[in-house]
Amino acid sequence: MEPQLPGSIGTSASLAIRLGQAMFSVASLLFMCVGVQFYAYTSFCFLVTIKGLTIPWSLTLAIVDAYSVFIKRTSRHLQIVLIIVIGDWILSFLSLAAACSTASVSDFMVTEAGASFCGGKMCSRYRLSAAMACLSWSLSLASALFNLWLLPSLYSNY
Amino acid sequence: MEPQLPGSIGTSASLAIRLGQAMFSVASLLFMCVGVQFYAYTSFCFLVTIKGLTIPWSLTLAIVDAYSVFIKRTSRHLQIVLIIVIGDWILSFLSLAAACSTASVSDFMVTEAGASFCGGKMCSRYRLSAAMACLSWSLSLASALFNLWLLPSLYSNY
Repeated sequence: MEPQLPGSIGTSASLAIRLGQAMFSVASLLFMCVGVQFYAYTSFCFLVTIKGLTIPWSLTLAIVDAYSVFIKRTSRHLQIVLIIVIGDWILSFLSLAAACSTASVSDFMVTEAGASFCGGKMCSRYRLSAAMACLSWSLSLASALFNLWLLPSLYSNY
Repeated sequence: MEPQLPGSIGTSASLAIRLGQAMFSVASLLFMCVGVQFYAYTSFCFLVTIKGLTIPWSLTLAIVDAYSVFIKRTSRHLQIVLIIVIGDWILSFLSLAAACSTASVSDFMVTEAGASFCGGKMCSRYRLSAAMACLSWSLSLASALFNLWLLPSLYSNY
């Protein structure tokens, strides 16, 4: 019986984190996309691209976690956990980059460029989207850290 | 005799990486600051703040590395390496955030907001500053990874 580190893959905490990631990412995507011409701005396109990568990744791993939780059997192969850790770290860096770009551009639009780029409602939607992207990034970092923490114990079993 | 992982603290590769970080950070700061009213924009202020944190950190660790290289004696205490790793990771995330913000805002200025915010020369200076910040981030990530890699071997010695 391996020790169950809460938050690492195959636990219910991990399932909750993954679902949170997917939820915040979908929220960020919806605030950004619905009825807004986001493709006019580079950094908003970047955010949409990254969220399009994050959502399937989080949902897939949520399904894996749900399977482990309900079957009550975690199969942790070193190679699979290694791939998950690397993917998590790369997506976490990309999410941070996208969230910061969106936040800084929407702030610049509001404070400097004025109402010529976004009306009052649009501006607050861009800001909400950036906030959701930041929340999604923090959860993504959490699961990356938990899985990284798990890695040495898997190595020592080999 | 401990194994010398190239790039971890106390090696000449680490000294080179730290000097590179400091150099690119100073370049980014100079492109941003000299003769430019950067404090009008939030994300440029953020970049300057983060570079003001990164430069002393990199230079201090460069001095430690230089001392280790020339004395040919590395003293690696677990606690000290742990502090360095945590500091490196936090600074690496902050550098990425600052670099992305600067890059996206300067891109937005050039493509959308037009010449009202920056003349031709200023715009290219902002862009150069963002590029230097990205290079500094990549070196910062490199040294964070190398030092993280060193950590488990120090734990196993205890």
